[in-house]
Amino acid sequence: MRYRFSFDGYSPEEEAFYGTILTLGNGYLGIRGEVELEPSLYGTTIAGVYDYAPYFYREIVNAPRAVGLRLFLNGEPLSLSTQRIRRYERELDIGEAVLRTEVEVELQQGGTLGYESVRIVHGSRKEVVILKFRVKPGRSGTLTIISPINTDTVNPLYREEITAKHYRVKRHSSHDDAIYTEVETTDGRYRIGIASSLAVSCRHSRFIVKNTDGIAEVFQLDVEEGKEYEFIRYAVISYTSGKDDIEQPVLKKLRDAKNAGFDVLYREHREYWQELWSAAEVRILGDEEAEKGLLFSLFHLMQCMPVDSRISLTARGIHGFGYRGHVFWDTEIYALPFFMAVFPEKAREMLVYRYNNLDAARENARANGYRGAQFPWESADDGYEATPPAIPTDMTGKNAIRIYTGEEEHHITADIAYAVELYYRFTGDNDFMEKYGLEIIFETARFWASRVRYDKDKGYVIEKVIGPDEYHEHVNNSFFTNMMARYNLLLAARYLELSKENEAWSRVAEAAGVTEEEAESWRKIAEKIYIPRQMDGIWEEFDGYFELLDYTVDPYGLGEERLPAEIREHLSRTKLVKQADVIALQYLLKEQFDTENIRKNFDYYLPRTTHASSLSMPTYAIIASWLGYDDIAYNYFMKCAYIDLHNLYGNTKDGFHLATAGGLWQILFRGFCGVDISGDILEIRPNLPQGWEEVALRFRFRGSRIHLRIRKDRVAVKITGGKKLKIRVFNEETNLEPEKEVILEV
Amino acid sequence: MRYRFSFDGYSPEEEAFYGTILTLGNGYLGIRGEVELEPSLYGTTIAGVYDYAPYFYREIVNAPRAVGLRLFLNGEPLSLSTQRIRRYERELDIGEAVLRTEVEVELQQGGTLGYESVRIVHGSRKEVVILKFRVKPGRSGTLTIISPINTDTVNPLYREEITAKHYRVKRHSSHDDAIYTEVETTDGRYRIGIASSLAVSCRHSRFIVKNTDGIAEVFQLDVEEGKEYEFIRYAVISYTSGKDDIEQPVLKKLRDAKNAGFDVLYREHREYWQELWSAAEVRILGDEEAEKGLLFSLFHLMQCMPVDSRISLTARGIHGFGYRGHVFWDTEIYALPFFMAVFPEKAREMLVYRYNNLDAARENARANGYRGAQFPWESADDGYEATPPAIPTDMTGKNAIRIYTGEEEHHITADIAYAVELYYRFTGDNDFMEKYGLEIIFETARFWASRVRYDKDKGYVIEKVIGPDEYHEHVNNSFFTNMMARYNLLLAARYLELSKENEAWSRVAEAAGVTEEEAESWRKIAEKIYIPRQMDGIWEEFDGYFELLDYTVDPYGLGEERLPAEIREHLSRTKLVKQADVIALQYLLKEQFDTENIRKNFDYYLPRTTHASSLSMPTYAIIASWLGYDDIAYNYFMKCAYIDLHNLYGNTKDGFHLATAGGLWQILFRGFCGVDISGDILEIRPNLPQGWEEVALRFRFRGSRIHLRIRKDRVAVKITGGKKLKIRVFNEETNLEPEKEVILEV
Repeated sequence: MRYRFSFDGYSPEEEAFYGTILTLGNGYLGIRGEVELEPSLYGTTIAGVYDYAPYFYREIVNAPRAVGLRLFLNGEPLSLSTQRIRRYERELDIGEAVLRTEVEVELQQGGTLGYESVRIVHGSRKEVVILKFRVKPGRSGTLTIISPINTDTVNPLYREEITAKHYRVKRHSSHDDAIYTEVETTDGRYRIGIASSLAVSCRHSRFIVKNTDGIAEVFQLDVEEGKEYEFIRYAVISYTSGKDDIEQPVLKKLRDAKNAGFDVLYREHREYWQELWSAAEVRILGDEEAEKGLLFSLFHLMQCMPVDSRISLTARGIHGFGYRGHVFWDTEIYALPFFMAVFPEKAREMLVYRYNNLDAARENARANGYRGAQFPWESADDGYEATPPAIPTDMTGKNAIRIYTGEEEHHITADIAYAVELYYRFTGDNDFMEKYGLEIIFETARFWASRVRYDKDKGYVIEKVIGPDEYHEHVNNSFFTNMMARYNLLLAARYLELSKENEAWSRVAEAAGVTEEEAESWRKIAEKIYIPRQMDGIWEEFDGYFELLDYTVDPYGLGEERLPAEIREHLSRTKLVKQADVIALQYLLKEQFDTENIRKNFDYYLPRTTHASSLSMPTYAIIASWLGYDDIAYNYFMKCAYIDLHNLYGNTKDGFHLATAGGLWQILFRGFCGVDISGDILEIRPNLPQGWEEVALRFRFRGSRIHLRIRKDRVAVKITGGKKLKIRVFNEETNLEPEKEVILEV
Repeated sequence: MRYRFSFDGYSPEEEAFYGTILTLGNGYLGIRGEVELEPSLYGTTIAGVYDYAPYFYREIVNAPRAVGLRLFLNGEPLSLSTQRIRRYERELDIGEAVLRTEVEVELQQGGTLGYESVRIVHGSRKEVVILKFRVKPGRSGTLTIISPINTDTVNPLYREEITAKHYRVKRHSSHDDAIYTEVETTDGRYRIGIASSLAVSCRHSRFIVKNTDGIAEVFQLDVEEGKEYEFIRYAVISYTSGKDDIEQPVLKKLRDAKNAGFDVLYREHREYWQELWSAAEVRILGDEEAEKGLLFSLFHLMQCMPVDSRISLTARGIHGFGYRGHVFWDTEIYALPFFMAVFPEKAREMLVYRYNNLDAARENARANGYRGAQFPWESADDGYEATPPAIPTDMTGKNAIRIYTGEEEHHITADIAYAVELYYRFTGDNDFMEKYGLEIIFETARFWASRVRYDKDKGYVIEKVIGPDEYHEHVNNSFFTNMMARYNLLLAARYLELSKENEAWSRVAEAAGVTEEEAESWRKIAEKIYIPRQMDGIWEEFDGYFELLDYTVDPYGLGEERLPAEIREHLSRTKLVKQADVIALQYLLKEQFDTENIRKNFDYYLPRTTHASSLSMPTYAIIASWLGYDDIAYNYFMKCAYIDLHNLYGNTKDGFHLATAGGLWQILFRGFCGVDISGDILEIRPNLPQGWEEVALRFRFRGSRIHLRIRKDRVAVKITGGKKLKIRVFNEETNLEPEKEVILEV
């Protein structure tokens, strides 16, 4: 692969930032990028392993750390905050998913100590972590290496000083060739087994040490000035939610990895990533900077690709504890389209996760007085509402910000139904629709049918909600929410209609107890659902929005800090919008609006949007590209591409912004390349930014593998696998035959 | 001194227990007894250093640890949980306040490693901690010693997994002869400076290491099998609430200590403790076991003796985080009498602490709708109510036990007034009374005058309180509370009367705005205050108590675990009492009851008391000894004497039970020795337990130092300092001349 990202200079204050952007993961494990030579409270995140937590219901567990190392030369500890650093460089190779570290320090005893490492979180052996390192002593003597499994990792809660440790150590054991630790989450649901082994090829002494901080292998060896000494640390991290013994299987996997050896493991790992990158191939000729940021984002997105449906993609990935490892609408609306088009099996897992939690969503609806299934705003491993009702703002915890999203941000339920439909239309995955999708669509429609209230003047209204724009709480008739609810209701009614001609589907409908009368009521509600007024073609974001204090901001700015205090402290009284809301709806349901209406709304809402949410810019960028607002579109694309590399929101330390990464890909795919489904036909209407020569990318559509090369006025399409396909390019339909590239010009 | 306490066998599970009972302290610093060779989350408590905390308002800060050590021989870490232990012995010498540790382990490399240490928290140099240790390598090679200041200490919150770190590291600095760390509490109120230096006499290399866990000195030296190597670690721990630089003063104190050297420091320390023990001398001839437990308790009590009035004695001392370092009525009612009689200047500091917080108590009264001063049930460094309104019972914090004591346990305010009067009567400290005592008495009486409500049938009632028996919340007319309130009101009225003949006092009364009319209203309320009914001479604990379900328990049992579930879960519906309540009142105001009435109430309440509070047995024991119930009195005395050594309440790990220690001394002094003040006269009526030959003890009374030797039928009294004194022994008055022992027989 083309891109390597290098960073130099060690600073303890910046470690948390690098911790996120140098995270390695494989969808199962996440190991943050903090340098292994210093202590860290960050350990391992394991997708799907959660525990009860104060304030946050359940959160992803910070499991023990199995990559830390302590080195001593002649008793002097290698210490980056203490010794003078001659060289400190870290390089993330996103092609091979490898993190390299090079360090050279000046010892207090005189002379230098060099260290180089290669860190891998194995792609296909999901539980395997490898750290190969080389020590170069600048003077002769005794080298001591401590290679621990640290059990002192904790989750920070509402502030760094307050932490929760989510596991208890059940057992440490030592073996001739390994150490092993087993911990159990405080709720008893998960046991995690971790084995580690340091392979040392030269003569050495080996000791074991166990204490309240963990267990470690300790090695001591005589070293000579100027020589290099190589070590390979293998670790296996596994978990179970059952009663099964995991020590033996974990040790076996460790020995298997060790027997395979570094070179074989590295080859497997490279092959895994070559496959991913070849499926996700994307090139931007003429703008290396844009391509670099895009690939960096896709790399981190792919690192989070779920291994199964026990958990879906989370807001900040396996990279950190931001949003506590919860799943939001970010997943379905922002991240899923990339997977749907590139790794459709993974998009399916993500939706099956929602299906698996349908019972919890039903309970949630019942508890709130509704019918059907109401998905939680924030979802953890068990599918119950995990949004904190309040987050403390001081040490005593007495002062807190009340959080209403869990109680009011109901559009998530329609967003999931929307994603089901989008996935199905894009992939044609009938098996999915029959087994999972239909039931989700029916049950979510039922929720909306019970959520509306009939008002004799307005029709069906939806009161007391929060739309995507979270500055305005307890609003009535959010444009976004009501439109999505209507969409959801009609979708369900349409699928009941289609079921009449599909035996499998009709069985699903029958099992779900959906009748023609119910579908009729859905259509009736949809027809009479109240949509907020328009003024001059501008949709009112919710009832009363137009009466609020007007205030506009520079569309190239970002966040709330630029606002004067009197505005910032009273955002809910202003027309300012946190993120794309009306515009997000116009993106999702674009077929319901004409371009002029979209333009009017875009022109109106853009200067009123602060983009304080990282979900905002992608939507605006896509629509900007459709409208020919090239500067805005490109500017937002680049900001999204560098959101974490440049720490644009100041919170990169809490994890990677996955929704933005997914949104970035959508800017490219839906915006710049102009890919869409119109009816049953794939449509391409390029809107490439200035200076972009060509975008080349691969994706899959209804079983066909498609390779696109797009220029401003020329599109080359080729089916590299699959069957023939009709597509529309530059408004003209064309038939594609497999393996034959067709070139179309404007 | 006579007693040394030895413990052998290392077990990680028992470390928290030993942490408490092997704590060393000097009233300013507390260093728990966890062995220095293993990591520990326990650091240092500094009397008076608090910080805001979730749930608990403010809690005592777990400051960095400056006694930890890590040793490596030829790269092999000394690890008590890993190596086979040949010898592990810890000895607390309570005479010299020294903790000795001896360890010998079998190394994994073959051979042994021996370690011996002496730990001192210096008596007179309050900020100095010394650890002298000797290493005995069983084989030759390289010894590495890491001597860190650990900044990874945290306070456990409502459960061990959830912790708060109360400080941020401001600075680490290293010097040729020392390392230094400065931290600041999260509220910015306190800065703590810690310097440490390891003195090594033989040839060695020295390195510094700094990281997120702290800063350390690291030493490496060549050692020979069979030889002994001695090291002395000096540390200074100091704090400020001001803006002053503390690094230089702290380093200077460290260098002063180092220059003085171990032998001088040890001599000073021994002299300090010789003085304490000679002031607090107490011997029990004929019952070594009893004496041993008593001295152990007094040792820990004296270790907590406040250095000034910034903080008073806390419920669990400087020994742990139980009750978050808060001050309760435990201090005034249970612990203060010992200090009043033995270290009256310290009892004065404890009461001045209450005076210093009179403004906070006034605010507290105002906030609750009352006048005067209402002391908080739990008090931290700032005197505001620090009782948690609820304590969570699970990880999510959603389920919690509601705690009403902060809102309802109002008797504390009268308890403090009572202690002021007791202190004054015992010491005759006019200066205290004028500067502090009177104002407390007036302001607390004012509180009660506003706290009562007039009921036309009953008179003045006090509703919705909790008495000492916390099983019964929201009760009306608690016998204890109403009686103490009456006492408080009459006390204030009497002092206004006395002020008429005392110019200084009358100025105080005038400044406080106390008028004759106000005093008259106090007398009127006191006269008409409602006291719950008696039945057959039994005082009803509160209105309606007699209607509750009757249930009795074995008076020799302890706590609630022995109760059947249906009783344990509904304690408030039963007559069961958590701790002495009516009986506690009869102890405090004994002059208001005749012996027959006390006996009736004792006989009734004892079998209904679970002693689930550690405050219960002392009161019962004192009264039992008065009533001639020798078995009960002795049994409770022994239980109190071994409450922590035997971990009777199962929570010794959270700190020492100081109220019990103070109560134990009161059993001896007030119960077995029968010391009392009757009018202005010191009275002695011995009730020695079976088999006790003689009790010898020293105390101070109104400026005189008194030495007592008490036998069943013979009392020897001598004034060893001070003026002549009239006393009453065996109901006969006698005049004492200084330095002349008088022997009185029954």
